[in-house]
Amino acid sequence: MSNTEKRRLWRDVSVFDGLHTLPEPMAVMTQGDRIVSLVAMHDFVEHQAEGCDEMGCGGVMTPGLVDCHTHLVFGGSRADEFEARLEGAGYEEIARRGGGILSTVSATRDASEQTLFELAKPRLEALIADGVTTVEIKSGYGLTVEDELKMLRVARRLGEALPVRVVTTLLGAHALPPEFKNDSDGYIDLVCQEMIPAAAREGLADAVDVFCEKIAFSVAQCERVFEAAEVHGLPIKAHAEQLSNLGGAAMAARHGALSADHIEYLDEAGIAAMRQAGSVAVILPGAFHTLRETQQPPIAALRKAGVPMAVATDANPGSSPLFMPTLMLNLACTLFRLTPQEALAGMTAQGASALGFKDEGRIEEGARADLCVWNIDTPAALAYAVQPGRLRQRLFQGELTHAI
Amino acid sequence: MSNTEKRRLWRDVSVFDGLHTLPEPMAVMTQGDRIVSLVAMHDFVEHQAEGCDEMGCGGVMTPGLVDCHTHLVFGGSRADEFEARLEGAGYEEIARRGGGILSTVSATRDASEQTLFELAKPRLEALIADGVTTVEIKSGYGLTVEDELKMLRVARRLGEALPVRVVTTLLGAHALPPEFKNDSDGYIDLVCQEMIPAAAREGLADAVDVFCEKIAFSVAQCERVFEAAEVHGLPIKAHAEQLSNLGGAAMAARHGALSADHIEYLDEAGIAAMRQAGSVAVILPGAFHTLRETQQPPIAALRKAGVPMAVATDANPGSSPLFMPTLMLNLACTLFRLTPQEALAGMTAQGASALGFKDEGRIEEGARADLCVWNIDTPAALAYAVQPGRLRQRLFQGELTHAI
Ligand SMILES: [Zn+2]
Ligand SMILES: [Zn+2]
Repeated sequence: MSNTEKRRLWRDVSVFDGLHTLPEPMAVMTQGDRIVSLVAMHDFVEHQAEGCDEMGCGGVMTPGLVDCHTHLVFGGSRADEFEARLEGAGYEEIARRGGGILSTVSATRDASEQTLFELAKPRLEALIADGVTTVEIKSGYGLTVEDELKMLRVARRLGEALPVRVVTTLLGAHALPPEFKNDSDGYIDLVCQEMIPAAAREGLADAVDVFCEKIAFSVAQCERVFEAAEVHGLPIKAHAEQLSNLGGAAMAARHGALSADHIEYLDEAGIAAMRQAGSVAVILPGAFHTLRETQQPPIAALRKAGVPMAVATDANPGSSPLFMPTLMLNLACTLFRLTPQEALAGMTAQGASALGFKDEGRIEEGARADLCVWNIDTPAALAYAVQPGRLRQRLFQGELTHAI
Repeated sequence: MSNTEKRRLWRDVSVFDGLHTLPEPMAVMTQGDRIVSLVAMHDFVEHQAEGCDEMGCGGVMTPGLVDCHTHLVFGGSRADEFEARLEGAGYEEIARRGGGILSTVSATRDASEQTLFELAKPRLEALIADGVTTVEIKSGYGLTVEDELKMLRVARRLGEALPVRVVTTLLGAHALPPEFKNDSDGYIDLVCQEMIPAAAREGLADAVDVFCEKIAFSVAQCERVFEAAEVHGLPIKAHAEQLSNLGGAAMAARHGALSADHIEYLDEAGIAAMRQAGSVAVILPGAFHTLRETQQPPIAALRKAGVPMAVATDANPGSSPLFMPTLMLNLACTLFRLTPQEALAGMTAQGASALGFKDEGRIEEGARADLCVWNIDTPAALAYAVQPGRLRQRLFQGELTHAI
């Protein structure tokens, strides 16, 4: 029987469907790469099992995790910088030793596509082993047309090499490269006039992102990037309101952004704009933890306004070297007081929404057969405890890719 | 060749020896269950490799991790309580629903030895997969003579079943059991007159611990427990100064405690007493994180006084459901500003010191052949990034128990 027809059956699993924990044990059936049936065990009739591969009983089933914001592809390491800072080195000394984001830019430019691929692969394997079936990967450490495209090609190759769906995002407007010092508008010209068109032409970018912040690019500059993206039909998103409130999220929402990410300093006007646009608020507790921030994102106000919240790793070498999505569930609950169900929804259905996908991150008839079964008693346990190795089975596009 | 004679050789590894990162690449040789040679690569002579099993090149070698403070054996789960609290339930409601430590006591009493063993096994396997070769496991959720002994028996069985050294600690004075409500002195009588003698008689406890805190037992009560332990020749240690400054650490130090643990509120007098006694300060960032505490342990003062600092998971169902030692390295650095080398020493040489062991947690001639080789570039990377799956090889008592 070909895989397009293969039917798989799980019995008596506790299901988190992407938004809620279902109230009773379920039987879940997949056929090929789709979920075809979801019924309560007490409604399950034995003949439905005929011709199915029995995949086991018990445990907790969730959609495959969707990590909608990562910077997984990069050269070099910032472990030395982390150590130097903790050993008392000041920012000046670290800058002199070549630290900060520009050290990652330099190492990424120096690395070949093959090297970047080999460096990123174990990071992505760590996400996969922790349940991820869809991951977004941004460029943003190349900052030349060729180096940004190189990063996006590596991201595409990772998706071809490993059992995971990779969504790429061009983040040319991530930082000002040294050769444009004192000419940030000139660099934005390059992003708009060359980088975006080239990435679009080669089909390398599924979306365009910006870093809207005092230490990066202004709201007006980011808006120019979005206008260029629109010309090429590319969806947009923004790093916004992470360290201060510039109004970047509201501007992004006015351009129909898929998401605004970080948003610790988001205000009521920003929340209203996001609600109106249907933009997802992507919560990134890893950077908050690593940078020891104290300003929390306005979770209660987002919840009240009904703005969907996603949760992602923000995996990157500087502000979130944390390659473990289930750790983010814990941090989102512990640091930001999301409920475990909100955190889990944030890494399943809402994470998928932040990427524009409505048929994944959900367990429902017709959705993609991207699933995880965990050795836990209740979905909340995934956020409550941090414990590697709890993934029992992982199904990607209907194929079993992990089983213990 | 029997394992007692087998020689293994690693070439060109970067070595963290338990206290420091060695300045140049090393060759490390083991024979049987001991490290027999540690030489710089440029001093390595090829004939030394004769008869050795070649274990590979490169990577970072550390001693096997020593997790010197855990509560790994327990019944039930507190995931529901975690969820209820985040969904807005007050403490009263949670108590009414049977939450808090007494819910764990109740579930632990209800569980058979076999059930407790099966519940704890995957938790311990998670620690092992993250590099642990020695783990301390406390009782403290039984709170009757029989239930405390049951927990200690489970801990011993775990050590027999899995490739890890288990050190047991009787923590009868962990919480006041409901049947002794309003009679904490009566319960301390039970601990001193029955529990400690029984555990000593059966050889089930390697040490005795107390929880010295307003919400647990007074300094005077804890001192009685220590006196009973001394009668039976058992080393002592204390949970102290976690939530307030009672002087428990200083009292424990006067009794020659192996360690005082948590110590967020430790004062100068406590530091001086610990230094004089040679007690180890066990830093537990997991509980600080989970409980959202703000009072940090006096790291700078401990460092200045030369009090050795260990780092442990405190793995437990209430205040630290975090079963990942390398995460603790990150938390110790990020939350408490330990340097990566201090954090690593805290989970190797100093963790071993906190258990009274001088020949483990170290890479030196004559030390135990408990080793980890990691797929990282520098020892600091172990604390800098949180990424499951970086353990390349793990050697326990000279036997290879993990290899990727
Ligand atoms: Zn980011
Ligand atoms: Zn403890």
